Amino acid sequence: MLLYDNRIIEREQARIDVEDRAYQFGDGVYEVIRVYGGQPFHLKEHLDRFQRSAREVRLSLPYPLEQLEEHLFELMRRTGLQEGNLYLQVSRGTAPRTHAFPAQARPLIIAYTQPSARPLKEQNQGICAVTTEDIRWLRCDIKSLNLLGAVLAKQKAADQGCQEAILIRDGIVTEGSSTNIFIVKDGTVWTHPADHLILHGITRDITLQLAAVLQISARTEAFDSAALFDADECFMTSTTMEICPIIKVDGQTIGTGSPGPVTRRLQEAFQKLIS
Amino acid sequence: MLLYDNRIIEREQARIDVEDRAYQFGDGVYEVIRVYGGQPFHLKEHLDRFQRSAREVRLSLPYPLEQLEEHLFELMRRTGLQEGNLYLQVSRGTAPRTHAFPAQARPLIIAYTQPSARPLKEQNQGICAVTTEDIRWLRCDIKSLNLLGAVLAKQKAADQGCQEAILIRDGIVTEGSSTNIFIVKDGTVWTHPADHLILHGITRDITLQLAAVLQISARTEAFDSAALFDADECFMTSTTMEICPIIKVDGQTIGTGSPGPVTRRLQEAFQKLIS
Repeated sequence: MLLYDNRIIEREQARIDVEDRAYQFGDGVYEVIRVYGGQPFHLKEHLDRFQRSAREVRLSLPYPLEQLEEHLFELMRRTGLQEGNLYLQVSRGTAPRTHAFPAQARPLIIAYTQPSARPLKEQNQGICAVTTEDIRWLRCDIKSLNLLGAVLAKQKAADQGCQEAILIRDGIVTEGSSTNIFIVKDGTVWTHPADHLILHGITRDITLQLAAVLQISARTEAFDSAALFDADECFMTSTTMEICPIIKVDGQTIGTGSPGPVTRRLQEAFQKLIS
Repeated sequence: MLLYDNRIIEREQARIDVEDRAYQFGDGVYEVIRVYGGQPFHLKEHLDRFQRSAREVRLSLPYPLEQLEEHLFELMRRTGLQEGNLYLQVSRGTAPRTHAFPAQARPLIIAYTQPSARPLKEQNQGICAVTTEDIRWLRCDIKSLNLLGAVLAKQKAADQGCQEAILIRDGIVTEGSSTNIFIVKDGTVWTHPADHLILHGITRDITLQLAAVLQISARTEAFDSAALFDADECFMTSTTMEICPIIKVDGQTIGTGSPGPVTRRLQEAFQKLIS
C-alpha cells in the first residue's frame, strides 16, 4: 500500500518512470516519521521541515500540507501501522532529462509505512561508531535524496561492525550519517549548531528542550574530534534511533564505556514523551 | 524502448520500485554517450568510466561490460538512433530502505536513447554563463546520480537566460554544472586538473589531446575566477555540447565577446573526429 500522488494504491501499481527526476538526479526531498501506538510523533514538525526542504530546492509541493496530512492518516489507517515508520518523499516529477527544472512536471509525492520495533537493545547497551571525513555537499540542512555520501559513510561503519559513522569536516564533528551527534563533558551537553552543515534534527531539537527542562546545560557549538574522544559521554539522536548512547568510537572507549548518566536522564525523559 | 536489466522492453513495462536505491538515495552512477551516424562515440571510454564510477561507490555491475555493450548496440539498432544520446545508469537495486548497502539486491541497469541534434547554434555563436559557488560533495570525479547541486546551479543559469553555471570553490574555477571549463590566455589553454573536484570529462580529454596535436600549449592547473574574467577565450566541453565557446560570464564579456581563434581551431579539429 502506497500513497502515490494523491491516491492510495497497491505498491505494485505505482508507475515510476525512468525519467522521474528523483531517479536520475536525486531531485527531491524526504522525511521519516516515527509512529507510536498508531500516532505519528511530531508530525507537524516533520511536515514543516518537508515543506522547507522542498522550498530550499525550489520544488513546489503538488497540494497543501493539510491534504498531505489527511492522506498520511488514511495511509496509516489502511495499513494499520501501530509501531514503525512513515516514509515520505517528493520528487520534482517526470520530464525529458535535462539538468534545469522542467517547464512542466507535476511533483510526485509517495509515502509508505514500515512496521518496526524501537531499537531498545541499542538504546540500552549503546552502540559503536567510526569516524570518517564529511565529504557531503554544503547544504546538509536540506533533507534531500542526494544521500550517497551518507550511504558510503554508513557502510564504512557497517564494514567495521558498527552502527553509525560520525562525520568530521575540517576537524569538526558535524553529525552522524543519519543522526545528530552529542557529547557530554563536565555535565554540559554539546552538539553542532543548526547551520548548513547538518540536518536540523527534530529529535535533536527535542533533546535540547529536554535538557532545558532537566536543567542540563547545553551548548549548540561546534566541537572537534579531540573533544569527542575526550568526552564523558556521547550519544546520537534521530527519529528512528531516538536517543542512543555511543560507547566506542574507532575502537576507543568513550568515557566509562557504558551509557552515561546524562544520556540516561535524557532517554528517560524522552520515554515519557512517547508513552 | 528501454534496456531494463538485460532485456529490451517497452518503457511503460519497466517496473521501478519506490525502494529502488536510485530513487531514495541517488545510489547509482550513469553515463551519457553521444551517437553520431548511428555509431556511439568513444563508447569504450564511457563504459570504462561507468565501471570506474560504480567501483568507487562499491557497486558491482550485474553483468560484464562486454554484455552491456551488446545490449546497447541492440538498443540503438531497435530504436534506429542515428543522431542523439544514449543514457545509461545503474542503481544499487531495490531493497527495504536503510542507508547501508543491502545484503541482497541485484543492481539495476537501465538505458534509453534520445534523438537530438548537435547544438550547432550554440557552438557557432557561443553561450553565456553565470558563476556560482561550488557546494557539491568532494567526489565529483564519480559520475553519480547525486546531482541536486548541479541541478540548482544549472537552474540559476537558466533563470538569468544563460546556458551554463561555472562553479567556483574557494575562489577556484572547478567546472561547469554539466561541462568542463577551459580558458585560453596568451595562447595557452588552461583547465582544472582531473582530481576529486571535477568530472574527468571524456571530451575534456579529447580536447587536451587535440591541443597537443595542434601544438597548442595546455596546462591542467587550477585557475581562479579573476583569471576567468581576464581570459582571452573561454569554452566548455561535454559529450553533448562538444566544444562550445562561452562569450559572456555574469554579464561580462570574455575576451572580444566572440568565439576566439584557439576555440575555433579546437572545434574544427573535433569536427574532423566525428565526421
